[in-house]
Amino acid sequence: MASSTINRDRLLKRHALMATFGDTGRGGVIRPALSAEETQARRAILDIARERGFACSVDPIGNLFIRRSGIKNHSAPLRIGSHLDSQIPGGNYDGVYGVLAAFEVLETLADQSVSSIRPVEVVIWNNEEGARFAPTTMGSAVHAGALSLADALNSRDGEDLRLEDELARRLNDLGSLTQIPLGTESFGYIEAHIEQGPLLESADTPIGVVTGIQGIIQFNVTVIGEEAHAGTTPRSRRKDALAAALALIDEIRTLTNDTEDEIRFTIGRLTVAPGAPNTVPSKVVFTIDLRHPDEERLGSLHVRISESCKNFVSPCEITAVTTLNSPPVKFDCNVMAAIEKHADQSGIKHMKIASGATHDAKFMAGLCPTGMIFIPCRDGISHNEREWAEFEHMACGADLLMRVVKQLCMSD
Amino acid sequence: MASSTINRDRLLKRHALMATFGDTGRGGVIRPALSAEETQARRAILDIARERGFACSVDPIGNLFIRRSGIKNHSAPLRIGSHLDSQIPGGNYDGVYGVLAAFEVLETLADQSVSSIRPVEVVIWNNEEGARFAPTTMGSAVHAGALSLADALNSRDGEDLRLEDELARRLNDLGSLTQIPLGTESFGYIEAHIEQGPLLESADTPIGVVTGIQGIIQFNVTVIGEEAHAGTTPRSRRKDALAAALALIDEIRTLTNDTEDEIRFTIGRLTVAPGAPNTVPSKVVFTIDLRHPDEERLGSLHVRISESCKNFVSPCEITAVTTLNSPPVKFDCNVMAAIEKHADQSGIKHMKIASGATHDAKFMAGLCPTGMIFIPCRDGISHNEREWAEFEHMACGADLLMRVVKQLCMSD
Repeated sequence: MASSTINRDRLLKRHALMATFGDTGRGGVIRPALSAEETQARRAILDIARERGFACSVDPIGNLFIRRSGIKNHSAPLRIGSHLDSQIPGGNYDGVYGVLAAFEVLETLADQSVSSIRPVEVVIWNNEEGARFAPTTMGSAVHAGALSLADALNSRDGEDLRLEDELARRLNDLGSLTQIPLGTESFGYIEAHIEQGPLLESADTPIGVVTGIQGIIQFNVTVIGEEAHAGTTPRSRRKDALAAALALIDEIRTLTNDTEDEIRFTIGRLTVAPGAPNTVPSKVVFTIDLRHPDEERLGSLHVRISESCKNFVSPCEITAVTTLNSPPVKFDCNVMAAIEKHADQSGIKHMKIASGATHDAKFMAGLCPTGMIFIPCRDGISHNEREWAEFEHMACGADLLMRVVKQLCMSD
Repeated sequence: MASSTINRDRLLKRHALMATFGDTGRGGVIRPALSAEETQARRAILDIARERGFACSVDPIGNLFIRRSGIKNHSAPLRIGSHLDSQIPGGNYDGVYGVLAAFEVLETLADQSVSSIRPVEVVIWNNEEGARFAPTTMGSAVHAGALSLADALNSRDGEDLRLEDELARRLNDLGSLTQIPLGTESFGYIEAHIEQGPLLESADTPIGVVTGIQGIIQFNVTVIGEEAHAGTTPRSRRKDALAAALALIDEIRTLTNDTEDEIRFTIGRLTVAPGAPNTVPSKVVFTIDLRHPDEERLGSLHVRISESCKNFVSPCEITAVTTLNSPPVKFDCNVMAAIEKHADQSGIKHMKIASGATHDAKFMAGLCPTGMIFIPCRDGISHNEREWAEFEHMACGADLLMRVVKQLCMSD
């Protein structure tokens, strides 16, 4: 591996600092979007940025932009970043790693007095997790015009607090920020992130060159049967909603048992009513979460599962509703090629990988050439206080990001 | 069908009267044990009993006994009855029909001035349903010594009210009652009841001669897997508790698919944690309710299901605990023969039937020769406001009970 030219000690120090904001004392953080703790984390980064002379601005949905000027300062900036909000609780790597890697790049460029043609901006997206305010990836979705600002501002948390009010309140604590509009032009966007899955670790590979974000289709399936006495009702007379649901699930699962193990098929929620041990269930509702990086394959599975639900022979009534249909996103070939080239030049082992989780990069991919760099996380665990990444991999990813940025910011 | 010798109009009138206590206005009642409404119903019967000169007494768990004297009044009484408490909500037939049929028998014996050798007693059991205070069939279980009086009195309802306090309060509203001890000797016990299942209706048969109460075995099965991200975790890396539970259930269900359709196998409760659509489930808990009238068959299924759970190959951890093991109860041959004889003499179509539900007769079967008479209920529906039985069948069952009682109360 080539010797790193980022400041590893500083990256480690910043990582330790961020972990103090919302520290649960069990290895993780509780730092939902627009909480006091997330605001402290944002403020800490902004304070350092201001000390270093970077310009700080905010857009109407609360995304932060930290700019190091370029020679042609009116050109569209090359953007890099991620988010600082966490799941409840979450770990110390998801999101925050990408922000710190990006910020380390900015500081390194300044340390080395690199005269970039284009400005480089660190973006700290607002509310990526959606753990407090729905939906997820809100900041980037609004920035890209995929979600209306009004809808986002009207989102309410579990205590019925409006996002708009919480945003105004928290912005007061962030110091002076230049207001910029939504959807300002980007020259490109690159996000570093932990994989949140086990593939890089299994392959003993420190860098994933992300090819895109797999598509997601979600269904709600409702099975209506008839409540009956468990002791007196013969099988032939039952309309057992759970028995029907399980047989249907079995059929659908068979459709998704691909030998390549690329289809992600999950039933994460299943409820049974009335739920008494001695009563035949009258109603079952379950979710299906289906993901695949290939649009055609995903579409064909969508059709086959819908047909399975529609044609399933049962004494019960079955209804399947598609609740989410988000097609796969492919990242830019040139960005991928740049990442691969610099990894090769640094002698870093890398592999192509599709992102199983969604990221702010998904919406940026519609606006500008976009890419992501993954690093491994232990046992693929994420959204969990046990989330953990090796510092060597964090430094390696940040260094690679720096090299790619150094190349791309020189484009005219 | 032989002309009835009970007073059909009176039976119908009593049925209408009972339906007023706890009337939901939707065809059913809410009349849980020791509620004001159940107490009103009990009081109404006691008032009529006192008018007719029947002796009324109560035991320490609140079972009521209404006695018509016999020539040998110190002999053990022939007992007949059921319960007046309901599910929440329940119907107008479960329990109350058996009490009214028994009371009609007592009144008919009085009308006809029958000089029975033995006393005949109507029993109104306390808390058969267990809907408010656990467990079910409490009154008969305590009477028979299968449940300690102290435990029963300590039972608390959902509002943390103690049964002992509620019982004392309600007894005040029932007028003067002679105190009798638990477990007083019975010469025999016969209970009339709706089937609560569809078999008599399907066979167009007004009378079921109940052979016994099927045994019940209940399990709690816990499947422990590992929470994982639905988008990033390949199938081969998952410890999906729901997938494992469904495969196990499939295997167990196969064991219980008897061609005779006699095995009652129900999974009535199944919970999935954490229950998020995009998270692979880490924990599933489900119940198994298994019933069969044959002790050997039930025991063999118990062993096979336990072994299935124990030997199931899965990345998850599976634990099965037997939470209830209540062996089948067989009713007395002579009581069954007496019911069949009188049905034949009256030209009433009848069939043997095992009870799928449990009844107070289960505990009485351990104390004295016991039997039950079933009548059909529409669509087998019970524990529901839609519960309904044809009056012709109610009268037929009461009349048959009267004939059987008339024979047995003459035994020395």
